[in-house]
Amino acid sequence: MKAKPLGPIPEGYESKAGELAIGGRTSSELVEIAGRTPLFVYSKAHLDARIAALRATMPRRIGINYAVKANPHPDVIAHMAPLVDGFDIASAGELGFLQAADIAPARISFAGPGKRDEELEAAIAAGVTLNCESRGEAMRAIDIGQRLGTAPRIAIRVNPDFELKGSGMKMGGGAKPFGVDANEVPDLARMVIAGGAVWRGLHIFTGSQALSAEAILETQANVLNLADELAQDIGEPLPKLNLGGGFGIPYFPGDEPLNLSAIGAGLAQLCDDLPSNLADTELCLELGRYLVGEAGVYLARIVDRKVSHGVTYLVTDGGLHHQLAASGNFGTVVRRNYPLAIATRFAADPEEVVNVVGCLCTPLDRLADQALLPRAEVGDLVAVFCAGAYGATASPAAFLGHGPAGELLI
Amino acid sequence: MKAKPLGPIPEGYESKAGELAIGGRTSSELVEIAGRTPLFVYSKAHLDARIAALRATMPRRIGINYAVKANPHPDVIAHMAPLVDGFDIASAGELGFLQAADIAPARISFAGPGKRDEELEAAIAAGVTLNCESRGEAMRAIDIGQRLGTAPRIAIRVNPDFELKGSGMKMGGGAKPFGVDANEVPDLARMVIAGGAVWRGLHIFTGSQALSAEAILETQANVLNLADELAQDIGEPLPKLNLGGGFGIPYFPGDEPLNLSAIGAGLAQLCDDLPSNLADTELCLELGRYLVGEAGVYLARIVDRKVSHGVTYLVTDGGLHHQLAASGNFGTVVRRNYPLAIATRFAADPEEVVNVVGCLCTPLDRLADQALLPRAEVGDLVAVFCAGAYGATASPAAFLGHGPAGELLI
Repeated sequence: MKAKPLGPIPEGYESKAGELAIGGRTSSELVEIAGRTPLFVYSKAHLDARIAALRATMPRRIGINYAVKANPHPDVIAHMAPLVDGFDIASAGELGFLQAADIAPARISFAGPGKRDEELEAAIAAGVTLNCESRGEAMRAIDIGQRLGTAPRIAIRVNPDFELKGSGMKMGGGAKPFGVDANEVPDLARMVIAGGAVWRGLHIFTGSQALSAEAILETQANVLNLADELAQDIGEPLPKLNLGGGFGIPYFPGDEPLNLSAIGAGLAQLCDDLPSNLADTELCLELGRYLVGEAGVYLARIVDRKVSHGVTYLVTDGGLHHQLAASGNFGTVVRRNYPLAIATRFAADPEEVVNVVGCLCTPLDRLADQALLPRAEVGDLVAVFCAGAYGATASPAAFLGHGPAGELLI
Repeated sequence: MKAKPLGPIPEGYESKAGELAIGGRTSSELVEIAGRTPLFVYSKAHLDARIAALRATMPRRIGINYAVKANPHPDVIAHMAPLVDGFDIASAGELGFLQAADIAPARISFAGPGKRDEELEAAIAAGVTLNCESRGEAMRAIDIGQRLGTAPRIAIRVNPDFELKGSGMKMGGGAKPFGVDANEVPDLARMVIAGGAVWRGLHIFTGSQALSAEAILETQANVLNLADELAQDIGEPLPKLNLGGGFGIPYFPGDEPLNLSAIGAGLAQLCDDLPSNLADTELCLELGRYLVGEAGVYLARIVDRKVSHGVTYLVTDGGLHHQLAASGNFGTVVRRNYPLAIATRFAADPEEVVNVVGCLCTPLDRLADQALLPRAEVGDLVAVFCAGAYGATASPAAFLGHGPAGELLI
């Protein structure tokens, strides 16, 4: 069987005693500590290094927010709290996670196209900023604020006419369920301000998972220009501008890491030439996957090794119920291999081509197709990388009754 | 905007007071009873009608099993208990669901390519039949049985050389992680019998979600022939043969319901001409989706109605976190519309083309694209049909923190 390439293993994963080690512990030790497989391991060292790299390259003028949806595990939130400037949430459920972690409401903003009245009420009562996605939502928020006797903190999410080129998920350029079409923003902003809301500015999120620094910088230049024009039309300065994110991570063969220093230099130049309407505006990036994605590894144990029609299968106790995206069933059209390794033979030379599958009784449950790996036996651990974002919570944990995976921050 | 077709609404859904009614209750009443949206409603009348149709058409010789993975809700399991002959499970978790419902272990068989030792132990201790997927698994089961002092009940899952033509998920024909290649089955069966196991026969599951009666009958003829040959080679009669399933339901525009009477007549003929080695073999079909899929409806409330660049969006409080397959992100390459309606205007004439989306902050969260529907407002309920199988548990309920949907059997 011919080998298909695997995605690139992120930097910073070393071997110890022949095994993949995270936080100084071998994979076997990590499983021992957690008392179970399958297991998501999140590396504090990786989280810290990623934030440090951003702080070292991004202009100080630009704050860094964590988009909680990428990984809402309580320990991850607690670890991020002192490291980032703000938090972006997508539901009242996520607000609850941040409240449980004692995150100050002034640091939180809430986007999402389908906010229910109860969610608006929870956010307004807490003093969280709403990134309003439509005129109807803004009016509901103002009504609820009046009922509660609390002025809602409102920003407007803009649906820009441009998109983030090469992004995995486009959230701008044409008709979208997200935000308010740019040409309708000034009217709505004036209505929000006249309605007694605390005006919090704009949120312009154009896309996610881009790997081209050039595309990100071009988009950010467009975002700043659009924000300047909108602020001019609104006739009020923007207290804050959420620039969105879009910083991608390499998942697949051939993907290259983002050139962070190029982005930092480009953003510094944009900040030096800020349009006049943005001179005093608080700027922030909203990053989720980029902060946590490469810091997570999913460990599953091989429970069977079998050959069918000459093809070797390593059957693990993990699968798409924890790692839907890695199985190729979430947001991808053509399945490609994520980075994957035999964690307990991390230092060994590859010697055979195998299919790595999950334990679910469905042909969709694939972790690696035709992967060239060291020879592995029942009992060995498999590591799927890039598991820190959109892993545990973006997978159907109840599917087939195996239950959720363990999660460990180390 | 040009309309794209919607999938066909299953039979048996009527309107009452202008609304979609299930079990004699309007959609609004159902939401009132459950106290929430989003809500899965499962119809007892539909479950009963489907089983009755099968009993009326299938030869008596063939039992009907329920594959719990399709919908493991406790009320659904309890309702199915007196209606079906057996239950098929895919994990120890599903075994626990059946034990909680007091289902006799003799009625249960357990398939799945990655059974852990603890799962084998739980099944053997309970007296459940294992459909063993490999030589390694069969040996582990025998060892565990010896340790427990309980002879394991073992059937062998066969990976046949043929496939179910036109099936949505193929589980036969070439290299597969499922089952034991047919040519290796006789040796393994003799080993299992010699090892002291209670010999329970074969499980031949060739695929799922087929809509062609002809293809299903052709496959069943192949299954019976293969089982006959294998029984001959094993040198022992087969106590039981699980014929698999593959009965599909119409999801998409142009899909036609399965011709059940043609299948029944064809199977009756096959049963009349049973090969001699199967004369006393207990036969059963394993059906999941076909039993429960069309009995379920997912109700979500419209929380926003907005226009972007001339396109109308109905934004609901539901989404892919409950209905991943309907969003087009699970097991499908090209997204097509599921059957969908405005539940609170079920009797109204269609008059506008809209996109129906979920509340999640991702462009993947689509419930219907360019659907021609009656005009709907904030507060109206949307119904997604074919939500009874692989809905609630096959979706990432924790994604973005909105939590699971309600579930109601009525």
